Amino acid sequence: MNERPWVIGFDADDTLWHNETIFEKVHERYRALLACYHDAATVDRTLFATEMRNLELYGYGIKGFTLSAIETAIKLTEAKIGADEIQQLVQLGQEMLLHPVELLEGVESALRALVPRHRLLLITKGDLRDQERKLKRSGLAAFFTAVEIVSEKDQAVYEQILKRHDIEPERFLMVGNSVKSDILPVVALGGTGVHIPYHLTWAAELVEALPAKNSRFLAIKSINELVRVVDNLKG
Amino acid sequence: MNERPWVIGFDADDTLWHNETIFEKVHERYRALLACYHDAATVDRTLFATEMRNLELYGYGIKGFTLSAIETAIKLTEAKIGADEIQQLVQLGQEMLLHPVELLEGVESALRALVPRHRLLLITKGDLRDQERKLKRSGLAAFFTAVEIVSEKDQAVYEQILKRHDIEPERFLMVGNSVKSDILPVVALGGTGVHIPYHLTWAAELVEALPAKNSRFLAIKSINELVRVVDNLKG
Repeated sequence: MNERPWVIGFDADDTLWHNETIFEKVHERYRALLACYHDAATVDRTLFATEMRNLELYGYGIKGFTLSAIETAIKLTEAKIGADEIQQLVQLGQEMLLHPVELLEGVESALRALVPRHRLLLITKGDLRDQERKLKRSGLAAFFTAVEIVSEKDQAVYEQILKRHDIEPERFLMVGNSVKSDILPVVALGGTGVHIPYHLTWAAELVEALPAKNSRFLAIKSINELVRVVDNLKG
Repeated sequence: MNERPWVIGFDADDTLWHNETIFEKVHERYRALLACYHDAATVDRTLFATEMRNLELYGYGIKGFTLSAIETAIKLTEAKIGADEIQQLVQLGQEMLLHPVELLEGVESALRALVPRHRLLLITKGDLRDQERKLKRSGLAAFFTAVEIVSEKDQAVYEQILKRHDIEPERFLMVGNSVKSDILPVVALGGTGVHIPYHLTWAAELVEALPAKNSRFLAIKSINELVRVVDNLKG
């Protein structure tokens, strides 16, 4: 067994707790609200285009999503949508923010097994207050020595995080469901990525091709396999 | 002259650059949009009540403000407001996010004078991406050894920041326009607060009474006096 400790970064949404399932339910209600104006595919495509256009301005998170959903609904209905329906969208966003945090199966026992020997960080993007609230409600906060809520998860941001916490990339492992945000930038820095796919992936997080698996890019089916993977790492 | 270095925290909005003036202009346009439904005082009072009710949920920043402005407009018009007018509010929020950063007079020369001898931090609340964008556009980023964008500026948060950066409270000075967010929690921790009032204060930042001035609570009229104040501090 490898005895040298690692610093293990965890993504939050769809890695520790369910998130994309909440968005998917909201998308269903959104399509239903606009069904008398447009088919589901047009609604989905137009909403996604609005979100992508606004991403640089709004950043990630539910508030920006809600504003993009309102903008798209007005556009798709040529401003015929009623204010009471727009209020339903405001409400929908608030319900998302208040949604209970549902942990993925195996998360707590994996963290409990890793925390005595390794240093665990939470690294997530989204709305500051929303991510803090979810972490608090998750009951997992005590497992992490630091929490980084960032506006983007790219190579430059990971580099800053490693520097700030004095972490050598060779001893850093990032665990997450997004190849784009959790794996590629970390592997590029000389760290190791452990990909745990979630059954739904937001289109903005898709990558064209997965890199080849090697000793620094691993994939597992569930967090239940993580402890064994960490134990078997070289070094 | 005091030669021992201080760690100096700076608030951003209305301390380094103008912010409340942008909100004030938006409030004017908001009142005008709703003028055929309600008088200005009712509009202001209802919007503020919505903002306060949503603050825990949304946190600080322009996206939450925009959502609260939409919710209030729908409520105040009993859902009679048109979707095209709601789109104007979405647009107004986007304009606020894209507003140029206008530094307050004297900021750059004060930072330039302090940075050779002291360690400067930026400590601000609001939307993550919006505050990062403003800092980048301000041209001031290089003055700060660390940037803390937080969801609240209370005693617990300042305590975490001091701990994370290994700062003794007795060597920490916080400079800002809000007595509530920049001064009181820092003084309570044993630090020093330098209050620089801005000509407008958001109602949510008002305090009932200012604490008495003493060696750890100072007030100056403009950032132009800051270098002299720091030079004259004991210790």
